Amino acid sequence: MIIIGERINGMFNDVKKAIVDKDEDAIKKLALEQEQCGANILDINVGPATREQADAMKWLVQCVESVSKLPLALDNPKLSVISEVIPECNNKVIINSTKADPEPLMQYIELCMKHNAGLIGLTMDASGIPSDVDTRVALGATVLMTCLEAGMHNDDIFIDPIILPVNCDQQQPTNVMEMMRQLVMLNDPRPHIVLGLSNVSQGTPNRSLINRIYCSMAIAAGLDSAILDPMDKELMDAVITAEMLLGKQIYCDSYLTAYYGK
Amino acid sequence: MIIIGERINGMFNDVKKAIVDKDEDAIKKLALEQEQCGANILDINVGPATREQADAMKWLVQCVESVSKLPLALDNPKLSVISEVIPECNNKVIINSTKADPEPLMQYIELCMKHNAGLIGLTMDASGIPSDVDTRVALGATVLMTCLEAGMHNDDIFIDPIILPVNCDQQQPTNVMEMMRQLVMLNDPRPHIVLGLSNVSQGTPNRSLINRIYCSMAIAAGLDSAILDPMDKELMDAVITAEMLLGKQIYCDSYLTAYYGK
Repeated sequence: MIIIGERINGMFNDVKKAIVDKDEDAIKKLALEQEQCGANILDINVGPATREQADAMKWLVQCVESVSKLPLALDNPKLSVISEVIPECNNKVIINSTKADPEPLMQYIELCMKHNAGLIGLTMDASGIPSDVDTRVALGATVLMTCLEAGMHNDDIFIDPIILPVNCDQQQPTNVMEMMRQLVMLNDPRPHIVLGLSNVSQGTPNRSLINRIYCSMAIAAGLDSAILDPMDKELMDAVITAEMLLGKQIYCDSYLTAYYGK
Repeated sequence: MIIIGERINGMFNDVKKAIVDKDEDAIKKLALEQEQCGANILDINVGPATREQADAMKWLVQCVESVSKLPLALDNPKLSVISEVIPECNNKVIINSTKADPEPLMQYIELCMKHNAGLIGLTMDASGIPSDVDTRVALGATVLMTCLEAGMHNDDIFIDPIILPVNCDQQQPTNVMEMMRQLVMLNDPRPHIVLGLSNVSQGTPNRSLINRIYCSMAIAAGLDSAILDPMDKELMDAVITAEMLLGKQIYCDSYLTAYYGK
């Protein structure tokens, strides 16, 4: 499982404050803690902390790179912001994210090719997020094939079927899992499939429980990467146990601690 | 989800002691508590408490029926024991369990037909428990078709693909889920699929965690019944949340408490 740590995001108050105050230590601490808890990639998102998105993101990258060699998921809706930040990154970059429309997709892919970066492609286009399985699969396949044809490596391609809050549309968690099963079945080698996991529980009173149960089920359906809070120990235990039960981590009595020891 | 409460089983020390001491109150309490925690059926298993299996089971049934109207899963490896107990039951009975060999299977089915009972059929025969998916599906289909042809109602048929401890054979949790997917896909209307859930974690140090993560994944694969401890609140919360995420329980902010209120 490729864990993308979600905590360095200006939508969290502590990170927003750190960005405004230029508190390097707070960001470094979050980077180190997430790495220690099992993050394989660190998401970097300025969020609503400031209008100076590129400057703030460069500063976040500097803070994180001073303490961690983990790849960075540059998370910003604007290509111009990513384009400005990516040349200043020393760690591996994954761009988070592009839609599936041909024009932005090709621009993002060119940027990835230039900087040997990975790419998260959302299964949505100018007409929005599809609610059915077939369109999600089709958009996922479009992103995948376009990336591959442009010469990107399979391992650098992450398809995100976009999970919506279960309290908005209760059919979507099932549809997203069915999409994953089909995408994995149709493609060998398969691309990575990623979710912004906590979105499934947005606005519900039992967020951590819903996150970990959905994550467990989604892993069985083919999810192999997730943007989540690796400091949520119960969630990480669920992820590790799900992978162990699927034979993706070798069982030993101490499989939980063995995972973090890697 | 059809929850079969596992606690009235002589392999548990408190139940063994209650059987030996003829402590009716202890058994009644366990029946009531399991019902309160969400059990839909109560398993009745004398286990190693005494050699007088039929007498002890009759006594357990009497205790339970004095406080609960829930169906009883008569759980004993011997047909002779079940045959002796079943005429004395007033509550609905599910026989737990038969193998898939033609001879015992037909004997169990005849007993079910005579007493309007349900039946749990294991996907194993005289050659043992198969380790592959196909044989499990074939044995499950054999049990299902034989029951249906004999006139049993679909809703009275429970197929148990038998989950083995993950520390014995790490491939089996995956195989059992694949078996479930195929059995559900191949049969409309589908039979119930049941597991003796806690077996997956036998001999491991993280039993409750492994039980609830495997149960969540298995529910997404088609599991709709499980023998488990309904007093394990975390496990029940996982079950209810998995079903909610699959659209089998309507979402509301208080979906957990709403479930028990039913």
